[in-house]
Amino acid sequence: MSVTHPAGFVAAGAAVGLKASGAKDLALVVNQGPTFDSATVFTSNRCKANPVLWSEQVVKDGVVRAVVLNSGGANCYTGPEGFLTTHQVAEEVGTALGVGAGDVVVCSTGLIGLVNDRATLLAGVRTVHGQLSADGGQDAAEAIMTTDTVPKQVVVEGEGWSIGGMAKGAGMLAPALATMLVVITTDAVVPAAELDRALRAATRVSFDRLDSDGCQSTNDTVSLLASGASGVTPSAEAFTAALTDLCTQLAKQLLADAEGADHEIAITTVNAATEDEAVEVGRSVARSNLFKAAVFGKDPNWGRVLASVGTTSAAFDPADLDVAMNDVWVCRNSTPAEDPALVDLSARAVTVTIDLKAGPAQATVWTNDLTHAYVHENSAYSS
Amino acid sequence: MSVTHPAGFVAAGAAVGLKASGAKDLALVVNQGPTFDSATVFTSNRCKANPVLWSEQVVKDGVVRAVVLNSGGANCYTGPEGFLTTHQVAEEVGTALGVGAGDVVVCSTGLIGLVNDRATLLAGVRTVHGQLSADGGQDAAEAIMTTDTVPKQVVVEGEGWSIGGMAKGAGMLAPALATMLVVITTDAVVPAAELDRALRAATRVSFDRLDSDGCQSTNDTVSLLASGASGVTPSAEAFTAALTDLCTQLAKQLLADAEGADHEIAITTVNAATEDEAVEVGRSVARSNLFKAAVFGKDPNWGRVLASVGTTSAAFDPADLDVAMNDVWVCRNSTPAEDPALVDLSARAVTVTIDLKAGPAQATVWTNDLTHAYVHENSAYSS
Repeated sequence: MSVTHPAGFVAAGAAVGLKASGAKDLALVVNQGPTFDSATVFTSNRCKANPVLWSEQVVKDGVVRAVVLNSGGANCYTGPEGFLTTHQVAEEVGTALGVGAGDVVVCSTGLIGLVNDRATLLAGVRTVHGQLSADGGQDAAEAIMTTDTVPKQVVVEGEGWSIGGMAKGAGMLAPALATMLVVITTDAVVPAAELDRALRAATRVSFDRLDSDGCQSTNDTVSLLASGASGVTPSAEAFTAALTDLCTQLAKQLLADAEGADHEIAITTVNAATEDEAVEVGRSVARSNLFKAAVFGKDPNWGRVLASVGTTSAAFDPADLDVAMNDVWVCRNSTPAEDPALVDLSARAVTVTIDLKAGPAQATVWTNDLTHAYVHENSAYSS
Repeated sequence: MSVTHPAGFVAAGAAVGLKASGAKDLALVVNQGPTFDSATVFTSNRCKANPVLWSEQVVKDGVVRAVVLNSGGANCYTGPEGFLTTHQVAEEVGTALGVGAGDVVVCSTGLIGLVNDRATLLAGVRTVHGQLSADGGQDAAEAIMTTDTVPKQVVVEGEGWSIGGMAKGAGMLAPALATMLVVITTDAVVPAAELDRALRAATRVSFDRLDSDGCQSTNDTVSLLASGASGVTPSAEAFTAALTDLCTQLAKQLLADAEGADHEIAITTVNAATEDEAVEVGRSVARSNLFKAAVFGKDPNWGRVLASVGTTSAAFDPADLDVAMNDVWVCRNSTPAEDPALVDLSARAVTVTIDLKAGPAQATVWTNDLTHAYVHENSAYSS
């Protein structure tokens, strides 16, 4: 369902021979209008994959007719030949749909440096085009999976309109290398400029605050397409709120399926001078291997939290920090407080609260623990 | 050995009851002059341990008579009571030696948030004072070990003078949480201001470029004491060169003993616009869990190298980067080049070379791989 839940969209996903496993590996999502407004955000990594280089040009005019996504290879660091493959895939989609290639976003995911067979991809485009349907969302969501163990889909209902989304990504989430790809559809009537504002507002507090392993992908793409098929124009506030809800739910699905993770950790920094500083503090803790290994070991090691906070430039008094884990205030005024033995870390969900006592702002960053399974999956990934 | 090799120094190390294991846990290094010049650098972490807060005041006048170091507890985030413990330890050392407490540097290492028993520490100071000798360097080096498996010591000979050093640290090296402590002694005649210049120059290209796990310690201290007992005044160039050699050797000993590591990885960035940018690029790769896990898996995954380089602000053309692993150029012009299967990652030593093609500067950053043993040691550390 997901991306085909809103009116005006068809999709498909099929196994076309890119993955050695024979699993589904090519997805196509098509906006049938009447409007073709869109907004897309990409990885901030400067070493971008060929599909990102292509799609950055496609989205500039705010019009996107279709998104084609393949797993089985990221088409990254594959040079001009790799770019030509992306271009020809867009042309093939455009020809099949009777639209311009310049209105087709291309996304790829899988190993970096791997060149996908062009003929297989182009034949695959014709296959998935032949399977487009109004209930193809599930197949599409399955076809973009790499190390994901489950497809990720969300639908949020508005009043007379809806938003659907699918995502993939299980590692290199910062937002992050197994690659995070997200396609979001809506049948609301929303012009491209407003879609862009809403998407940036929503991703800023959802995907951008997911920091599973601190590794930033080369292929991340979040593409939002509006068909206008509901005929309803929601308020900017209502649309942004629904979109933020959807993005947050998808981000949490990514977090829950992160490679090898035993725990999902929400790090909330409160009473920060600014929201940016709250994010900086949360991110520093989310990137501490020592803290993350401690959570894996069910060790409420708040010293490692403060050691990370101390590396930031946020406003705080180093002698007056409070830290809670699962609501047990194990540290008050930068000294031991409640007994850490009261913190039960046996459940998957863990909360860390850091009180900076420096202002009115707060933010939550999500991460995972550092586990043997993470090391195993990422040491064996390409072999 | 080591810190007692240069003339004018005595040292001791003993088991005084801080460690439950009964291992040596208190060290004392004393400068007997005739000069007492010194220079010290500390962690840049804003959440500093009590011994660092104390010692920052001690070193301001350039005069240090003794360094006392305990393992078995970092005395960090232990509040005013912890600071008082540090102060009283310095007073006890001063009384025993007949010098002011304000000339005694204190270092502590071990778990954060753990309060050491003050009476045990003070009695221990009297014990180690009674054992001071001109060949006590080895005992001192052993007494500062925590998760270290071997003591780290180096001696560098000048012409008529020498430098000796000891170090501890096996994790939180960035320079980094099991805490890096280093004491360096010399019998050269070098005034404090010149010691400071030399020490900053040496640490900038040695300890500061060691990034084992990206986690910055709360207790790091590198203290350099000059006795002048040789009567020889070396040139600034000769002294700085010898000191840099010593610091680099100690840093490599720390790298070789890092918690759970299977590989020692030297990441050299060449043809960078500036040295700072070369360091930024090397550090970004040194902090990529995905890259570090790949090295553990003996997988020459250069895509993860470029994905990290892309997160930096260094000058380069994303389409024109070269990467070698163990001198095999697996990536040229940001595309696959020599066969990665030619890269043999079975040995502990691994080199990564990144050619930015942007200028004349270069720098090397050292790190370790991310292993099951690292996760194990750091998930079980405090339990």
